[in-house]
Amino acid sequence: MIRRVAITGGTHGNELTGVYLVKKWQNDPIPVTRESFETLTLHANPEAIKACRRYIDRDLNRSFATADLANPATHYEATRACELNALLGPKGAEETAVDFILDLHSTTANMGLSLVVSSESTLTWEAVRYLCAREPKLRVYRWQGDEEDAFVDSIAPNGFAIEVGPVPQGVLRSDLFMQTETLVYHLLDFFEKSNRKAALPELHEKVTVYDHVALIDYPRDANGDLNGMVHENRQDRDFTLIQKGDPLFRKLDGSVICYEGEEPLYTLFINEAAYYEKGFAMTLARKIEL
Amino acid sequence: MIRRVAITGGTHGNELTGVYLVKKWQNDPIPVTRESFETLTLHANPEAIKACRRYIDRDLNRSFATADLANPATHYEATRACELNALLGPKGAEETAVDFILDLHSTTANMGLSLVVSSESTLTWEAVRYLCAREPKLRVYRWQGDEEDAFVDSIAPNGFAIEVGPVPQGVLRSDLFMQTETLVYHLLDFFEKSNRKAALPELHEKVTVYDHVALIDYPRDANGDLNGMVHENRQDRDFTLIQKGDPLFRKLDGSVICYEGEEPLYTLFINEAAYYEKGFAMTLARKIEL
Repeated sequence: MIRRVAITGGTHGNELTGVYLVKKWQNDPIPVTRESFETLTLHANPEAIKACRRYIDRDLNRSFATADLANPATHYEATRACELNALLGPKGAEETAVDFILDLHSTTANMGLSLVVSSESTLTWEAVRYLCAREPKLRVYRWQGDEEDAFVDSIAPNGFAIEVGPVPQGVLRSDLFMQTETLVYHLLDFFEKSNRKAALPELHEKVTVYDHVALIDYPRDANGDLNGMVHENRQDRDFTLIQKGDPLFRKLDGSVICYEGEEPLYTLFINEAAYYEKGFAMTLARKIEL
Repeated sequence: MIRRVAITGGTHGNELTGVYLVKKWQNDPIPVTRESFETLTLHANPEAIKACRRYIDRDLNRSFATADLANPATHYEATRACELNALLGPKGAEETAVDFILDLHSTTANMGLSLVVSSESTLTWEAVRYLCAREPKLRVYRWQGDEEDAFVDSIAPNGFAIEVGPVPQGVLRSDLFMQTETLVYHLLDFFEKSNRKAALPELHEKVTVYDHVALIDYPRDANGDLNGMVHENRQDRDFTLIQKGDPLFRKLDGSVICYEGEEPLYTLFINEAAYYEKGFAMTLARKIEL
């Protein structure tokens, strides 16, 4: 049984889709209310939302590693991570305050409507399969990224993030807002049907997953500053194949750097603003059936 | 005679096109070097560039009103405005350090390749006509905005800003980088031909200008926070007409607000991230021949 579900928005304070969806539901909870379980909606990073910045001191969505939660908090996001862990977790416990965390994100990359999944739980992947059946445009990225097991949704036993794009930081787009909203309602319907053992739609045996392989950084000068950009032929081509010899970057001087990998892979999160400082221009993934 | 031209980038520290074009030319000034005049390239707001934020304390591109420059500086951008005024101006003087300021900007709105012009000078408008002849996609916005005569380019007797979009804050797009670069080289060629009294291409008698009429704010709640977004049918439709009854905003609750103006006007700077805090969702302009 699913008893409590949390929907978090504003984990990154400048990703406004989640910030304003949560605001909408806090004004009127009826659309996220179902009979068989309780839905919590909350702003994960209120100070970053006020400042319209990704974070104040450190990326909150990399602040939930078990070791971090055990250490005394030394800055704003560390304190907030401990609060959220107490409110929604605690992480790794037999009994947690919520059964599922849905974390709402947006990206400047052309990721369309996608899920970023790190959890391996059965319930998580049943929910993924249900959403893929309801929304054929939806894509699934199995993430093993720059820091392991440190996402907000890792403090509950089940969960994932919705990523929608492209939308600039600090901007609300009505089309992506409504697409995200619809996907959230499908997920809540899934929990309701699941609790009631009601007829779930025929789920495909398999789901197509983009499985994380590697991170690629921008070309940089001796000081670590960018001296190149994503090549114009690669820009916006998230979830497409790149093959050896395809243009990857254009340097500021006009010259071109090509992809040198032997294996053709899919490019994701191309030119996401928040990843400049993390040191990746895009991620590479392998397409698999799971 | 044009003796000195300044190209400023990073007036807003998170508009990376100008930041990295200036960086490129500081590494290799040959592309901006012409025989008959000197070209300066500089980062207008170095601290904001370091922080990858629009500004530290106040929008630098609203800090050049004559009254502001006369007051003792009380914060970072006020200090920097006085420095730039000493370096490139002084504003309103008979003799200024530079004859023309080209200020490089980008926007999250779908403004394409456009000029934002406040100067009324003959040289400025000759340059506009030249660029329009060279680049048919270029559009011209005559701005009288939220604060008058306070742009960086106002400290020289001639100048304007290039605005390119859509590009998120904190992101470099190769296609828009190269389009901006080409436009800059055309402008420098214009000054060179003009100084040499060389044959200028046939300029049209008239130039199409989008002439500023009004600013429109987002729908907001009693606390001043947004409770609506640009309507999905208006999003990305910069430089298109809006007529009475056309959808303008979608509120968070799903309802629609329509445009009520009697006069059909053109919508510009639709959903620019930096204008949320300034209180405008878009600007309205009248299309005229000048």
